[in-house]
Amino acid sequence: MDSSQKSGEMAININETKSAEIKPTKTKSGKGKSDLGPPIIVATTKAARDPKGGWKRGVGIFDFILRIAAIGAALAATATMGTTDQTLPFFTQFLQFQASYDDLPAFTYFVIANGIASAYLVLSLPFSIVCIVRPHVVGARLLLLILDTVMVALTTSGAAAAASIVYLAHNGNPNTNWNAICQQFNDFCQRVSGAVVASFITALIFMFLVVLSAVALRRN
Amino acid sequence: MDSSQKSGEMAININETKSAEIKPTKTKSGKGKSDLGPPIIVATTKAARDPKGGWKRGVGIFDFILRIAAIGAALAATATMGTTDQTLPFFTQFLQFQASYDDLPAFTYFVIANGIASAYLVLSLPFSIVCIVRPHVVGARLLLLILDTVMVALTTSGAAAAASIVYLAHNGNPNTNWNAICQQFNDFCQRVSGAVVASFITALIFMFLVVLSAVALRRN
Repeated sequence: MDSSQKSGEMAININETKSAEIKPTKTKSGKGKSDLGPPIIVATTKAARDPKGGWKRGVGIFDFILRIAAIGAALAATATMGTTDQTLPFFTQFLQFQASYDDLPAFTYFVIANGIASAYLVLSLPFSIVCIVRPHVVGARLLLLILDTVMVALTTSGAAAAASIVYLAHNGNPNTNWNAICQQFNDFCQRVSGAVVASFITALIFMFLVVLSAVALRRN
Repeated sequence: MDSSQKSGEMAININETKSAEIKPTKTKSGKGKSDLGPPIIVATTKAARDPKGGWKRGVGIFDFILRIAAIGAALAATATMGTTDQTLPFFTQFLQFQASYDDLPAFTYFVIANGIASAYLVLSLPFSIVCIVRPHVVGARLLLLILDTVMVALTTSGAAAAASIVYLAHNGNPNTNWNAICQQFNDFCQRVSGAVVASFITALIFMFLVVLSAVALRRN
């Protein structure tokens, strides 16, 4: 009865305070069974740590909500950029009368980057749920942090590449003799600008997710 | 004599294992002075944790070396882009005969972003040294992680914006009637491409620094 109660305490203890409290029984392996001093300490520290676990659970839920918001922003960016094409009803000085995202390599990259980010976000939701259910899991959170960091770079690069082209399309550049095309393709430019803004919002959410994961990792 | 020895043990203990071992004396405040059980456990866990502190110190040293490498890459990117200008000795179809970074807003942004990254990296070196000297400090490491994440976004956006313009300068775009300018400004294009590559290397190092800080934060 006494040994089963003690093993039950230790099992809780493995989840809650893995690093610190196991060692006394390891170093004092001969004596650890006889005196009940260390297990009593274990019980008190476990009780003192419970609010911290709840705080981590709150961070996990916030992480989950942010991911759903990011899915919305990333899908909006992908869909807006991917479906926008404008056919002009009249002749202009250009030989081209239709504008769509695959006319410019930067916009194609933008669609691919945001598509990958959307897919990753959907796939990351189960890991985020694991972090809510078990707030002290380290592996899943570290994996999410690493992949989120990669996604920060991916979405930011896509958004910045598209933004510099959108800027050029709006304003042109007299030094390089590149003319603005947004007078002709006004609707196209506006929708593309909206997609770029949505992608920057996605990148911002990813940055916030990285910091959130780091804060949650801080004290295991 | 006995009390001074015990306070010495506690002073070491505050640096090494702050979170776990203070609580036994706190929760058992009445009894903690009388029995010498918990301080003995403190001494053994401290000895068992020493390798973990050494491992963190190694991560800190690696962090410092990576930062110095990143300073080199960021300064190279800034200087290459900032000092490159090419004046053509002959007339072309363009009205412009000189190309420098401030002709294109994306390149100006690139120089500013990489300049900020260089300055941040130099200023972050003292914090990195703090993380080497005191491997268990959380605040400095978390601050570095947050600012590194911001710098990932900043350098990646600068590099991607410049890269999309460089791509356009190399290949042009027939759909929008933007001509390639690298036939005329060949030297300028090559140096700008080098600067973009250096900036992407800086961004990669920043991403690695974020992951490194997260790994070091994992277990305090």
